Amino acid sequence: MNEFDLIRLLTRDLPPNPTVVEGPGDDCAVLDLGAGADYTLFKTDAVVEGVHFAPDTPPERIGHKALARNLSDFAAMSGKPTHAVVTLGLPPGFDPERPQAIYRGMLELASPLGVSIVGGETTTCPERLFLSIAMIGRVERERCVRRRGAQPGDALFVTGDLGGSLEGRHLEFMPRLAESRWLSKHWKLHSMIDLSDGLAGDLPHLLSPDQLGAELHSPSIPISRAAKRRARSGGKSPLQAALTDGEDFELLFTLASRDAVPLRDAWQVPFPDVRLTCIGRIKETPGITIRDRTGGHTLTEHGYRHFEQP
Amino acid sequence: MNEFDLIRLLTRDLPPNPTVVEGPGDDCAVLDLGAGADYTLFKTDAVVEGVHFAPDTPPERIGHKALARNLSDFAAMSGKPTHAVVTLGLPPGFDPERPQAIYRGMLELASPLGVSIVGGETTTCPERLFLSIAMIGRVERERCVRRRGAQPGDALFVTGDLGGSLEGRHLEFMPRLAESRWLSKHWKLHSMIDLSDGLAGDLPHLLSPDQLGAELHSPSIPISRAAKRRARSGGKSPLQAALTDGEDFELLFTLASRDAVPLRDAWQVPFPDVRLTCIGRIKETPGITIRDRTGGHTLTEHGYRHFEQP
Repeated sequence: MNEFDLIRLLTRDLPPNPTVVEGPGDDCAVLDLGAGADYTLFKTDAVVEGVHFAPDTPPERIGHKALARNLSDFAAMSGKPTHAVVTLGLPPGFDPERPQAIYRGMLELASPLGVSIVGGETTTCPERLFLSIAMIGRVERERCVRRRGAQPGDALFVTGDLGGSLEGRHLEFMPRLAESRWLSKHWKLHSMIDLSDGLAGDLPHLLSPDQLGAELHSPSIPISRAAKRRARSGGKSPLQAALTDGEDFELLFTLASRDAVPLRDAWQVPFPDVRLTCIGRIKETPGITIRDRTGGHTLTEHGYRHFEQP
Repeated sequence: MNEFDLIRLLTRDLPPNPTVVEGPGDDCAVLDLGAGADYTLFKTDAVVEGVHFAPDTPPERIGHKALARNLSDFAAMSGKPTHAVVTLGLPPGFDPERPQAIYRGMLELASPLGVSIVGGETTTCPERLFLSIAMIGRVERERCVRRRGAQPGDALFVTGDLGGSLEGRHLEFMPRLAESRWLSKHWKLHSMIDLSDGLAGDLPHLLSPDQLGAELHSPSIPISRAAKRRARSGGKSPLQAALTDGEDFELLFTLASRDAVPLRDAWQVPFPDVRLTCIGRIKETPGITIRDRTGGHTLTEHGYRHFEQP
């Protein structure tokens, strides 16, 4: 049971709250707070030393990563993040330069995007740094893209290149906010998620609860140079890395197949340096198949998952 | 330098954001997001195992305390909390009953208050439980009470009894939301804070940045039974406990002295079981004095000077 199921279980007997458009289970909570034609988005996300970054990671990059992960969840709903609050747990006796550098890393990313850090709390976490950020923002109702909404026959697209993020990208990636806003302005997206647990781990979230399926075209899957480098040094195969490495923070989305070619053509004007790839389509029947020249295979590889019991 | 100073230092060269009415430094951030006549409030707060609660604390009470601390910050601004998101860091291999019980403790407090938990994230924190909650809510503009705003001559009031919270109250207190809403509905409060660091530690926050002072009337300070019990077992003196024990989560506020007697009379109708005490007044000159029958003594954040530990 993950945390979404847990909250659903514990709250199933409570009266529904009409302000909650989308509760736990999507990239952000979606709230209707009477803010004109917009929904309010609300999200929390944390990084922990030794889990999400190494102890010797430069603190600016820790701040960057923590904030960028949150921003990526807003991108996944085509939202506009606006304000953040920060909880920073630090071992006692820390060098005061460390939190300052973490805040610098956050602010260097937040400020150009118009995101204000409006509250901060520092507390003690004896063994390791724990950095939790909560963020609010907004999105026009008709441009809010959820995880659910994919339709049979939809084309499945992914931004960027996949795999090998741990080589460095996970500490310095730029969340796909501009891309996501452009997409929802010009196209009717049916569903979207940001890839944090790997393509194989996150694609299923676009297929529930209606038990849709997907067919991936193996040669189309965009593999990062980092994934290829790591394979040469004896790591996973490049394709396996692209399917199962976590922390890509690219957008995975679906839209009607008739839009696929026009989208690919139009994309190159605003984003000439960002790859956009159609990697497959949504099927009516459950299961994920990956096709290469030898035929179709069931995708069994699992992405990186949180909250699993040993 | 605390986190408020740090954020101010790092953001001082950034252009001001007109949606931020009150940034870091008050109990909640105050935002003007165009939600009718209301401000939006935004807050984050965390509890850490071994720092804010003992490892053997029943998990329902951990959830209760974590949420109640947040709610108390909303009470301190006379706000109405509405939605929360939760970050829960747990050691690997935890008993799945533990997060369930923590969520039960949060929901039992949140649901009757109309606060919805709309998002949860569970992550790994190898050595100890780390629970961070972010909350949003709203408050009518004219009823938003800040830390700043006290005026010379104001009467200084406190709810409840002070000291000894660690004996148990800190795990089961009810935040003073109803009291705070009633106060701002019927009275013109000048300033307010919730007591988390003890009266002696938090009162200075009502006196800056204009460098006001305060005079406390020692015999009026309401001392809890727990503080008296602990003194009999060799702890701090009851008065010292009431001044310096943390985690009272009572409201400390000021209003014009002409309102003091009518407020005390009116209070007993809605809140017959909650003590409300005028403990002193705001002075024009800096410094906090505490008066007893022997005269006036200077109060520091550690309490009476002559009560300080050698």
